[in-house]
Amino acid sequence: MDALNQPEPRYFEKMRLVAEVLKAVEGPIYVVTHVDPDGDAIGSSLGLYRALKALGKDARWVATPPRFLRFLAKEEEYADPVDTLPPGATLVVLDAAEPSRAVGAPVEGFVINIDHHGTNPRFGQISVVDPSKAATAQMVKDLIDLLGVEWTPEIATPVLTGLITDTGNFRFANTTPEVLRVAAELVGYGVKLAELTDRLQWRPPSYYKLMGKVLSTVEFHFGGLLVTAHLPEEAQAEEDSDDFVGLIRYAEGSVVAVFLRPKEEGVKVSIRSRGGVSAQNIALRLGGGGHVPAAGATLKGMDLEAAYEKVLEAVQEELRRAGYL
Amino acid sequence: MDALNQPEPRYFEKMRLVAEVLKAVEGPIYVVTHVDPDGDAIGSSLGLYRALKALGKDARWVATPPRFLRFLAKEEEYADPVDTLPPGATLVVLDAAEPSRAVGAPVEGFVINIDHHGTNPRFGQISVVDPSKAATAQMVKDLIDLLGVEWTPEIATPVLTGLITDTGNFRFANTTPEVLRVAAELVGYGVKLAELTDRLQWRPPSYYKLMGKVLSTVEFHFGGLLVTAHLPEEAQAEEDSDDFVGLIRYAEGSVVAVFLRPKEEGVKVSIRSRGGVSAQNIALRLGGGGHVPAAGATLKGMDLEAAYEKVLEAVQEELRRAGYL
Repeated sequence: MDALNQPEPRYFEKMRLVAEVLKAVEGPIYVVTHVDPDGDAIGSSLGLYRALKALGKDARWVATPPRFLRFLAKEEEYADPVDTLPPGATLVVLDAAEPSRAVGAPVEGFVINIDHHGTNPRFGQISVVDPSKAATAQMVKDLIDLLGVEWTPEIATPVLTGLITDTGNFRFANTTPEVLRVAAELVGYGVKLAELTDRLQWRPPSYYKLMGKVLSTVEFHFGGLLVTAHLPEEAQAEEDSDDFVGLIRYAEGSVVAVFLRPKEEGVKVSIRSRGGVSAQNIALRLGGGGHVPAAGATLKGMDLEAAYEKVLEAVQEELRRAGYL
Repeated sequence: MDALNQPEPRYFEKMRLVAEVLKAVEGPIYVVTHVDPDGDAIGSSLGLYRALKALGKDARWVATPPRFLRFLAKEEEYADPVDTLPPGATLVVLDAAEPSRAVGAPVEGFVINIDHHGTNPRFGQISVVDPSKAATAQMVKDLIDLLGVEWTPEIATPVLTGLITDTGNFRFANTTPEVLRVAAELVGYGVKLAELTDRLQWRPPSYYKLMGKVLSTVEFHFGGLLVTAHLPEEAQAEEDSDDFVGLIRYAEGSVVAVFLRPKEEGVKVSIRSRGGVSAQNIALRLGGGGHVPAAGATLKGMDLEAAYEKVLEAVQEELRRAGYL
């Protein structure tokens, strides 16, 4: 593990300082997160915003949730983005791996940076970055405890949402015993877990027809070791289509799943692997990058047919390296 | 809540007795579960079997896991079904709501009955039936603690499997704080959670083509309140096809999902509901039964077209009752 991915050594000391500072500051506190926010971005920022409001703070939550997360907040909780921060303001940036990814307010003045991405450059006056945490929401859970706010279902629900979405609903390897203990505690504060997980799985009606079309493109290669599918060119691009590689990756006997999505600039490729095969290696051969189990690339200027050819070559090479062929 | 569904009032006292008895008995201990075993049946029985073996007992596990659960056990762990039990044998029946559902050995002689189904008639010399538990595996977790067996990944993995499958991977309303705390503890004993949840999601390659065909039958009714789909008549019946109602039930704006499956005796109907609508009411109108959020019926002697007509009528009536129409 490189230095960037070490757990924050003074985690509780720093988080306690953040709590003391947030309790002390007088002016408005802006809570923002990253562009294209996911469940952890929205959940951790909305949870902290509500906790600060419960403390009587002049907190403002500047975020634009995607369609499937809008149910978490009430209309009156949204604040408009700002170009400049008033004097005396405090900015809390959550889950943003770089200051340039933060949106809703400029990263200037007094900045508190809380995140779990190891690559975070530790920007801001106070930064608490802990890659050993499954989600920024897990860190916000600790911060809210340290703020001494009484937990309510309204505060616990978005925080648990961050934990659920960043762990694939408690399925990924980052689901540590500590994550499950924190989830137990949050559910105990009155979250309606079944309603929440139901809601998080809602998809627009159009998704189902699209999914049917995608599944009609499923193909198996190399004796079933590779499963592929693509978004048919005539299909409209949908908000949720990134899920498709997750849909095909559980084919029994397969060790690689690749989903191809034609876009204007070329073909976007999402890759998942298991069993000693590296999606990262495949992505690197295609000019992309990512992690060992999950990676991606964009094959610029190619059509679907050319992209499939490139993908099959790159996967074959990796299957040979891993001893499958 | 009727008397049958009350939590077992002397739960720990009785479970402690079961543990003492299992430690004391000299003869073989047969561990069996119900016919058509699910993840909880296989997980709880395999976990207890391994714990008894670790205690040095002459334990025998008689079970036939479905294809997707076979990875949990080694070939040499399976014992053959028996028609009679030898004198001095002890029989532990797990997760079987009725003695007639137990398979692998006759329910006779000295019987210990451990289950979480409220309808269990409390058969056997000692029965511990606790409907407040999410899974029989949750009860087996307590029993193994009381047996004083040292937890290993081999014992913890099947027990956690039971908890995962009976809670829909920690999504259903039975996912209490206690369930999450038990899961945290089991993961802490060295279960490879990400590998386990990956494996539990494997589907045969043929499933994907079939899923595509099913999705091409998706239709919305009553302005999107009802989503339906069916298994095309030409499609082969598959082991996993019962998942299909789960696949379509998350259509945004829908409050009822119905999946129709033509079979020899008629059309099998699976119903899911939310938002104040009762799947149970709909099933009762179709001559079936079940729970409020999940129910089913078989429309005997009908073809698909007639079944759809009946379903639409029954759903319309229930949507009216619930105030949607």
